[in-house]
Amino acid sequence: MPTLIHTGCDSEKEARKIARALLERRLAAAVHIRKIDTLYRWEGEIHDHLEWRLDIKTVEARWNEVVAAITELHSYEEPAIFSTRIHRITTGALDWLEENCAE
Amino acid sequence: MPTLIHTGCDSEKEARKIARALLERRLAAAVHIRKIDTLYRWEGEIHDHLEWRLDIKTVEARWNEVVAAITELHSYEEPAIFSTRIHRITTGALDWLEENCAE
Amino acid sequence: MPTLIHTGCDSEKEARKIARALLERRLAAAVHIRKIDTLYRWEGEIHDHLEWRLDIKTVEARWNEVVAAITELHSYEEPAIFSTRIHRITTGALDWLEENCAE
Repeated sequence: MPTLIHTGCDSEKEARKIARALLERRLAAAVHIRKIDTLYRWEGEIHDHLEWRLDIKTVEARWNEVVAAITELHSYEEPAIFSTRIHRITTGALDWLEENCAE
Repeated sequence: MPTLIHTGCDSEKEARKIARALLERRLAAAVHIRKIDTLYRWEGEIHDHLEWRLDIKTVEARWNEVVAAITELHSYEEPAIFSTRIHRITTGALDWLEENCAE
Repeated sequence: MPTLIHTGCDSEKEARKIARALLERRLAAAVHIRKIDTLYRWEGEIHDHLEWRLDIKTVEARWNEVVAAITELHSYEEPAIFSTRIHRITTGALDWLEENCAE
């Protein structure tokens, strides 16, 4: 089952390091990196800075391994990671996805 | 239950104003702001301009309050607002989310 | 039922061409275009370049026609296309969506 896993990094360098590692370990077929502004509450205060988001195209079965790899490589002790479901997908894209990150 | 609520603004200034208000009112734990090009149909014509998107990390129970706050603060009379589901999330991220915007 | 359909192009020009065609053919009510870095596995190698993503706001019933139109207009033989579900949406946004791309 195809899925998208999302996390964020404080630098483009770290985002690229994690993206490459996921691809090299065949834990993802593609990773999109995009720069955003993030505002958030942390320890009672509102923080506001740039963030590089990773949108990771993979399969549902890889969730634990992707979370473990991100946590291993990320500068935060406990990076925030979540997933959103892919509902429909063209056959060619599904074959490519499964070929590149299925077990 | 964690969720993502999405809307758009015509200026970065308005996007930031709404993002901060949602965080100050504890209606969201984080808001991502990103600049895009939007093309859309409106009153029979195709419009094409920049837009600042808000991706709001909150909990499902806050939907009505988030919609009300955006509608109150937005320059449009009826801003388009929708949500997409978060499927899986790491425990630490869920705790932080609920701590910062649960009722 | 409202939905988001996603695909990517190698140039902004192509992304805009496809976005406009979808709107002119009433297959979508809005298309968001955003620039990202994409890293992906293709034929055993990791590729890394810019991509212009399209996030297409439409209705579920249009999936086949949107896939056909993108495939017709895209420079790839088989562009990767997938959808993610819209969970909740404000009434005004739903009416506008259905008015502009329902059959």
